[in-house]
This record gives sequence, C-alpha cells and structure tokens, in this order.
Amino acid sequence: MKMMGRFIAQIVAIEAVFMLPALAISLGYGEWPAVQAFAVTVAIMLALAGGLFLLCRKAGRLFGAREGLVCVALSWIVMSLLGALPFVLSGQVKHYIDALFEIVSGFTTTGSSVIADVESLYKGILYWRSFSHWVGGMGVLVFLLAVLPGGQGSGFTMHLLRAESPGPDVGKLVPKMRQTALILYCIYIVLTVVNVIFLLAGGMPWLDALCTAFGTAGTGGFGIYNDSMGSVSPYIQNVTTVFMFLFGINFSCYYLLLLGKLKSVLKDEELRLYIGLAVSCVIGLVLTIRPLYGTLEETIRHAAFQVSSIMTTTGYTTTDYDLWPGFSKTILLMLMLVGACAGSTGGGLKCMRVLLLFKALRRNIRRILNPRKVLVVRSNDKVVSEQVLENTNAYLAAYVIIIVVSTLILSLDGFSFETNLSAVLATFNNIGPGIAAVGPTCNFAGYSVLSKLTMILGMLAGRLEIFPILVLFSRSTWTRK
Amino acid sequence: MKMMGRFIAQIVAIEAVFMLPALAISLGYGEWPAVQAFAVTVAIMLALAGGLFLLCRKAGRLFGAREGLVCVALSWIVMSLLGALPFVLSGQVKHYIDALFEIVSGFTTTGSSVIADVESLYKGILYWRSFSHWVGGMGVLVFLLAVLPGGQGSGFTMHLLRAESPGPDVGKLVPKMRQTALILYCIYIVLTVVNVIFLLAGGMPWLDALCTAFGTAGTGGFGIYNDSMGSVSPYIQNVTTVFMFLFGINFSCYYLLLLGKLKSVLKDEELRLYIGLAVSCVIGLVLTIRPLYGTLEETIRHAAFQVSSIMTTTGYTTTDYDLWPGFSKTILLMLMLVGACAGSTGGGLKCMRVLLLFKALRRNIRRILNPRKVLVVRSNDKVVSEQVLENTNAYLAAYVIIIVVSTLILSLDGFSFETNLSAVLATFNNIGPGIAAVGPTCNFAGYSVLSKLTMILGMLAGRLEIFPILVLFSRSTWTRK
Repeated sequence: MKMMGRFIAQIVAIEAVFMLPALAISLGYGEWPAVQAFAVTVAIMLALAGGLFLLCRKAGRLFGAREGLVCVALSWIVMSLLGALPFVLSGQVKHYIDALFEIVSGFTTTGSSVIADVESLYKGILYWRSFSHWVGGMGVLVFLLAVLPGGQGSGFTMHLLRAESPGPDVGKLVPKMRQTALILYCIYIVLTVVNVIFLLAGGMPWLDALCTAFGTAGTGGFGIYNDSMGSVSPYIQNVTTVFMFLFGINFSCYYLLLLGKLKSVLKDEELRLYIGLAVSCVIGLVLTIRPLYGTLEETIRHAAFQVSSIMTTTGYTTTDYDLWPGFSKTILLMLMLVGACAGSTGGGLKCMRVLLLFKALRRNIRRILNPRKVLVVRSNDKVVSEQVLENTNAYLAAYVIIIVVSTLILSLDGFSFETNLSAVLATFNNIGPGIAAVGPTCNFAGYSVLSKLTMILGMLAGRLEIFPILVLFSRSTWTRK
Repeated sequence: MKMMGRFIAQIVAIEAVFMLPALAISLGYGEWPAVQAFAVTVAIMLALAGGLFLLCRKAGRLFGAREGLVCVALSWIVMSLLGALPFVLSGQVKHYIDALFEIVSGFTTTGSSVIADVESLYKGILYWRSFSHWVGGMGVLVFLLAVLPGGQGSGFTMHLLRAESPGPDVGKLVPKMRQTALILYCIYIVLTVVNVIFLLAGGMPWLDALCTAFGTAGTGGFGIYNDSMGSVSPYIQNVTTVFMFLFGINFSCYYLLLLGKLKSVLKDEELRLYIGLAVSCVIGLVLTIRPLYGTLEETIRHAAFQVSSIMTTTGYTTTDYDLWPGFSKTILLMLMLVGACAGSTGGGLKCMRVLLLFKALRRNIRRILNPRKVLVVRSNDKVVSEQVLENTNAYLAAYVIIIVVSTLILSLDGFSFETNLSAVLATFNNIGPGIAAVGPTCNFAGYSVLSKLTMILGMLAGRLEIFPILVLFSRSTWTRK
C-alpha cells in the first residue's frame, strides 16, 4: 500500500505542475475566480502529494501486474477527482458530478460535455479542459515513466505501459521501457507542435490553436466554440481532418519511419485496414449525403472530417450529422465500434483487435474443417501468441457486456434507445458526441447522476482498456491468500 | 457430391411426407386452391427426391466435418426453397421472396411474419406455417438421424447433430448418436402432446391448439390470431408461458429427470442462470410497467409471458410491449441477446455461452494477476476444454460482426435505427417480433428485397449456429488442395 501511495503522490504532484499554465493564462486574462480556483486546487494537490509522500517514505519497489493495474486505475481516479475542482471552485459548473464528468471526459479523451455554452468559459478553464485531452492522450503514467529515473520493477512498468497504452499488445520500441516512453512522448510533442503551426498559419488565435491541437492530438474533441468546428475556415477543418487521422495511427509506425523503414510501415496490416476502412466509409457517406450539401467539395470535406473524427474517437464535428440519413448514421455508429489503431491516442475496439478477431474467426472455421491441423494466426507475418488472442476475445466479451449493462442503466432515464446506446458507445469508446438527444448539437447534461456515474466509469474503462478497472473492482485483487 | 445429393433427396422426401397432413386439412376444409398448391408442391418434391436419388445411386458413405456442415446448410436452404411454394401457389402470398421469408422464419423457429392478416389464411396453410416451427425446432436432420438406419460415418453424424442442435457443445446422452437423436425426439413429442392437452382443456379448438403448441414447442411464435396471443384466455396465456419456458430448458435435463437424477438437474449452472435471469427480469418489468395495467395479476401475467416468450426466442405476444417505457424495452432487447439454454429448441447466444464468456473473462482477469498460474474454466464441476472456449469466443465475434453488418444493410431502407437493430436481433436470434416499426403489432413486409435476403440468411445463420452458413460461403470449403 505504501508503495502505491508514493506513486500516486508523484502523479498528483505532476498534475499540479500541469495546472500552472492554466493558472498563468487565467492570470493573464484577469479571470480572478478562475485564478483563485486554480491556486486553491494546486495548493490542495501539493499538500496531498506532500502528505502522501511523507506518509509513504519508507516504500520499497513496486512490481507485478496487480500493483501496476491497481496503480493505473487509482491514479486516473485521483487525478480526475482533483482535476474537477477548478470547474466547481470557479463557479462555472454547478454540481461536482458534472465537473467530474467533464474532466474524466477530458482525461479519457472522450470529449463528451455537459456544458452547453463553452464560449462563455474562462480562458484558463478552457485551456485546462483541452489540456486534459493532451495529457490523457498519451497517458500521464507513461509521462511519469519517461521523466522520472527508473527504480520500479520491470514487470510493474511493463504492466503500467500495457495498461495505459491502447491495443491488444504493447510493442516495445526499444528494449528499455523508459526509453520507449520517452520516444513516444517526443513523437507526440513534435506532431502536436506541427499541428499548432499549421493552425496558426490558417489565422487561428494562438490559444485557440493550442486548445484545438490538444483536442486533436489526444483525439479528445472538446470544442472551444459552441458549434465545435462548424464555423472555422475550410482550411482549418481540413488540417484537423488530416491531423486527427495522423494521431489515430500507431505511433510505432512513426518510429519506424524515423528509422527509415518505410517498407514495413506500408506493409502494416493494421494501417492498411485503418486507411481502407476510412476511405470506403468516406465514399459511402459522400454517396448518401451528397444531396444535403451545395458542392461536392463541401460534401467530401464534411464526410472526411466526420469519418476521421469518429474513427479516431476524437469527436469534433463540422456539421450536424444527426440530420444525415439512417444509413450514414449507422456507418458512423459502426466506426464508433471499430476505433483507431492500437498504440495511438485513439479509443474504441482498435483496428488491430478487429483484425485479430477476424483472423481468429477464420482460423476457427478452418479448424472445424481440418480438425487435426495445427493452425496459427499471423499478423504482419509474425505468429500472434495464443495469449494475445485469448485476451482479445476476453476484451470483446467484456466490451459487449459493459455496453449492454450500461445501456440498461441509462435506459432508466427515459431517453430514446438510440440516444442511450449512442451515449454509451460515445463515452465508452471515448468519442464524445453521440446521436439524437446526445448528438453533435446537444450535450450530456440531461442524464441522471446514476447515468453520469455509469458513463464516468465507462469512459475510464474505455481509456484504460477495461482490465485495470475490472481488476480494481475484482474481489481477488483485494483478498490475500 | 453424389453423397450429398442422396442425403438431400432423403430430406426432401421427408418434407413431402410432412406436408401431407396440411394437404389433408385443406381437403377437409374444402380449401381447393390450397389443396392444389400442396399437391403440386408434394409432386415437385417427390420428383426432385426421386431424380436426385437415381442420379446419386452409387454413393459411398458421408463422413467428416466439411460434408456435415455443408449438408446441414444446403438441406435447410433446399427445404426452405421448396417449403415456400404452397404460399405462392395458393395465391395467399404474392411475391416468392415474401413466401421464402415466411417459411425460413418458420423452419428457423423465428416467427417473424410478412403477413398482416393471418386469420384470413387457409387452415392448411396456417397448419403448414406452424408445423414448420415444430420440425425446425428439433431439426429435420436430427429426425433423419433418429428414423433412418445408420450407415454414415460417426464424424459426419456427430457434426450433423452438432450443427443442428444449439449450444457450445453437444452433449451425447448415450454413446450412440442415433439413440441420442431418438431420445431427444421422444421427449420433444411427449412435451408437445402434454402442451396440446393443456390447451384443449382450456377450450381451444383442436387445430388452434395444435398450431399454438407447434409454435411453443419449436419456440417459433407464428401467431394464428392477428393479435398473437392477446385475446386468448388468461389460462391459455399462462399455460403457454409455462410451456415456452419448459421448451427453453436443455433437453438433457429432462433426460436426467427420467433417469431420476434430480440433484444434478438442480445443480446445473445453466439452468440456474436461466431461471435466475427470468425471475429477475419479470420483477424488473413488473416494477416498471405496473401503472400500465389494471391489476397486479394482469401485470405479472403480461411480464412473465413476454419474458418467457422473448427469452426462449419464441415471439408470441399478449400485449404491445412497444408501448412500454424505455427501461422495460431495453430489458427485452437484452433478453433477446441472451436467449434460451443450449440443447433446447430456443435461439440466441444461449445461457451456456453467456456463462462461459463470463467465466473465461474471470479467468482472464485472474491470469493477468497471476501470470504463472495454470487456470482452467469449470462448468458444473467439469473442466471446459480450451477448444470449446475458443469456439465460444469465435461465436461471439461472428455474432457481433453479423449483427453490425446486417444492421448496416437494413439501414439502407430508411427505418429508424431502433427498428433496424431490433429487426436484426429478432431475426438473427430467431425471436420474431422486434421493436418500433417491426414491433408486436407490425410485420416485416415493409423491408426491401435486399434486407429480406439479409434477414433470411441471418435467420438461417442464427438457427444453425452461424458456422454451417459461414462454412458454406467460405472459400476453403470449395477449393481442393
């Protein structure tokens, strides 16, 4: 327990440091309630971190899967509980549960909001809200791994990285975990900076460009305008389409590119599925929504933006896709399920898992036909271990169960079935907006506290790939034999 | 190929024999167009069977999984193509695709209908429609196994039974397949006869009682009145509730009862889940729909009937549950997914699979916590083989993929998302009525030919537990190495 305490103290301290720019911005804009709120929160955080650190001074090393998973789950919950404070303390969100929903939605890069009029928010709060996407996208624990000197057991760090980075299997880029984390964060920062430069070139004010890039990089999708990205210039929409798509690609592809291994990137099966699916969905959408827009350019722009946004689970919108015909909306719902690539900042099932599920299914059919043959599943010419396949299957089972149970809970609130299911899909897959009463022009404020709690847990489970949250609530975690 | 030809010839001949009672009933009621239709169909069937038999005289034995699965899939398709003829020939259904939908819905014990006014149908047609449920419930191939002398390879019969009887694993009751099939059919016939007697005791006319019992036994659900079971007496509704539930139980439980092994029946985990789920859903429904009905007795009666009907995937209705509040409807949608017990005549995922998925998931979490420990999944104190677990997982994957793709195709037709999803769930799980535009008071006639074909394949895939249909369309089935 003491070891975990010290670990969480570090996380809280980092969060306090991360909050300082928001404080500075509020100070610069003279938003005194926000300044006060941030200052109080930072003080609470530092006090808590200091206290925990003193209490847990004599801690040993952390190691093992159980500690890793519990640490990840607890860190994210503590970070969210504290990160929600500025919203309430500044008076911009009335109920703590709404603030919690908002910040969890931020950290998990969901982008579902309970705030209708975001343009009236203090700049500092707006920055903190969008920055939470950026931190959550790559993972604050990965950050901790990257910046802090080692000292934890390798099993622990392995599980930490595994729990926080999305996908069925964690690819070590280099043998050392710490270096892998560092490389990932460098790629992340460079891509974000390039995105900001492109946005500034389109004439966006610097704070808006920063917030938009944060939401894009983390595939979060908190809009800073009331109509999300509907009223910005087509240039900025297109830049965002491209960058959302780039942040949905497995970061190890970028690492391979840096090493000059273009060929193996082009042969990557997941990347091919990701690109193929995106292109075919854009074509499918353009064919069905063409009559709704004036020009072909506009149709393609909106279709590509929405596909890129939903598929990478970002959740920015340029148009009210809730008005699209049923077939188009069902395409979007399907994309919500699939999600982005493993090892990216995006959510959902992940293309890699979909690929593995299809391959395992094909193997299964072949095995029925040839019961005596030994058949393995290959991905990118490598044999996929049975353990990864089994985990992928368990993931799908947990995924389906969570969706069904959550929808059942949300249906107590009297919204339509379409609204409830899409609300669950949009939060659990960390997308943001859903369909109908939680569509792009609406927000999640109407749900009851129970439903909001369900969605909060769903967002965390979705971001942390289910298992840390299940482990946290599993009886066998807390019983000692 | 010749071996399959002879096998299918036998199936067609049996179907012709099965059609004779319908012919007799139409003769008795003086329904000449129906008499003509049945006579022509029987003649076509006999000619086809005879021709096939002569062509494939010199056939060897059938063996192996591939032949078994392909035979099952082809038999069901041929049976449906021929069984649809009387509807069109008698002039009671205009388009052949609608007749095909209706008879596939019958054989697969789905009970979705494209006919709005069933009371205007000829008695003979009504009988044939309901009888298709009874044949499809236990499976005509199982019947063939039971009545015909052996001669096929045991691998073939094993796969035949495995393909046609629902559940993750086929339980041989006795070592010999043929005897197992015979015992199953005997239990089936006895239960059906008891059901008919109870219905006759309630004052139902004999033909109505027969048709109702056929629909109950096969968990089919074609209504013989326009409001399904809405206007029959409470006694008959309650009898049907009980019998639907009984036909949703694994038939091996009845066999164990006959052997006097009451204890092992009571300890059966699947049965416990099935009963527990049913009872808790009835309670949940009663709490939410109480205000809609006059008395508590009426509320409980409707809740129990609908739960029993949906869970066993029968599809009879006593009330328009589409008017129920969202929570109640979501409970029903959830029950549609779960379905009845393995080894019963019901459809859906099956309680056993749900149980195995949960257990595999729990094992997976434990394995993450204790990577070095060997963990097995147990069911009823027996170790479940990894092969069964893998098949169950593959089943879930195929299940989800089929639902998503089918919903996408149906959404081309412009109905609401709720309608489309529930139409897919209702047909693929062999339930019958869905929600909204395909709810209990409506029918499936409004869908396009493409959607109807999708649902026809979905019903067949659902009844045959997906794999035979996937194998039929799989490339590796038709390529020789």
